[in-house]
Amino acid sequence: MRKIIQTADIEKMDRQYRTNLFNALSGYKGAHLVGTMDKEKHTNLALFNSVVHIGANPPLLGFVLRPTNVTRHTYENIKDTGYYTINHALIDHYEQAHQTSAKYPEDTSEFEAVGFAPFYGDLHPAPYVDDCLTNIGLEFVEEHTIEANQTILVVGRIIELMLPKRAIGADGHIDLAALGSVAVVGLDTYYKTEKLKRLSYARPRKA
Amino acid sequence: MRKIIQTADIEKMDRQYRTNLFNALSGYKGAHLVGTMDKEKHTNLALFNSVVHIGANPPLLGFVLRPTNVTRHTYENIKDTGYYTINHALIDHYEQAHQTSAKYPEDTSEFEAVGFAPFYGDLHPAPYVDDCLTNIGLEFVEEHTIEANQTILVVGRIIELMLPKRAIGADGHIDLAALGSVAVVGLDTYYKTEKLKRLSYARPRKA
Repeated sequence: MRKIIQTADIEKMDRQYRTNLFNALSGYKGAHLVGTMDKEKHTNLALFNSVVHIGANPPLLGFVLRPTNVTRHTYENIKDTGYYTINHALIDHYEQAHQTSAKYPEDTSEFEAVGFAPFYGDLHPAPYVDDCLTNIGLEFVEEHTIEANQTILVVGRIIELMLPKRAIGADGHIDLAALGSVAVVGLDTYYKTEKLKRLSYARPRKA
Repeated sequence: MRKIIQTADIEKMDRQYRTNLFNALSGYKGAHLVGTMDKEKHTNLALFNSVVHIGANPPLLGFVLRPTNVTRHTYENIKDTGYYTINHALIDHYEQAHQTSAKYPEDTSEFEAVGFAPFYGDLHPAPYVDDCLTNIGLEFVEEHTIEANQTILVVGRIIELMLPKRAIGADGHIDLAALGSVAVVGLDTYYKTEKLKRLSYARPRKA
């Protein structure tokens, strides 16, 4: 039986209930570790589950940041340096990845706090996560403030990409299940996946 | 061994290879059927894998539409009527859901073409998909054009929500695996999921 929830019900909801419900409602996401460096070369690592494909040519990814009314190192570092990395969290270490969202003291890097090793490419200063198998280096392109709640969509261009050769198919498709990339629902529930099928490009069927 | 791909390599990529690679790179997504109605009450149904959580209070979802240089019924209908639905595609019918992306003749509704039944709520005119177990009704709020590639982020406010009572936990979390919601990678590869664990709110660990 369908439970029907309308605006009047939503307005009466307990705050935590509403947070859980609406975070889960957007469905499966990847769990992505965003790595940045500040101007004094302190690293920062933060978990996001709001990465979205914006385009393939040029290659663009977006992700949504909460309002900047409290300190948001990720946002500040991206704006200060112009670069960041997105790294896919894996089944092997999703609990460690989740732990990066704890509020550590101002001078603590989440890399050290949770035990992830950074590494660097030759194109930009942002730290990659060595423990992740899919590492994406991005250059900040533009941002959009959502007027309705002051969240920010950050859009970046992919300038570097590293992943195991074995995971890239002959036609460019990436086998994320084989890599062990984890899926997440809401703020805290993690899933492993099993491939059902790869479908062909849809065309109208003949009668 | 990590394969390193940089901007110079990306520029030389085959178009289809690039499309596959960068669509998969954003990671797992939900497969969402967006239902709309035009001013003459013709229904439209289209599959999107770019739905993203924008906020819980007010409850907001975003999704990314490709440039409107060809006819995009979904976008036009949302702008004309102000309402749309987002419905989670399920393991039971993901091939049917995928089929909505075929280019049907102008006067054909994808509901009829692929055999999904519409139903309606009492708050707005947009059609829900009866075959889906999670049905979300939204009011258009704002749009943002990504300057880098002219895609559009459409943001809507959730005004109605229907899903089976059994799937909503006491704290509001939704068990998407129990509902059979399907996950998708790239444009065409579908996955079922298995829950690993729900983690608690992360706090710094004592030494």
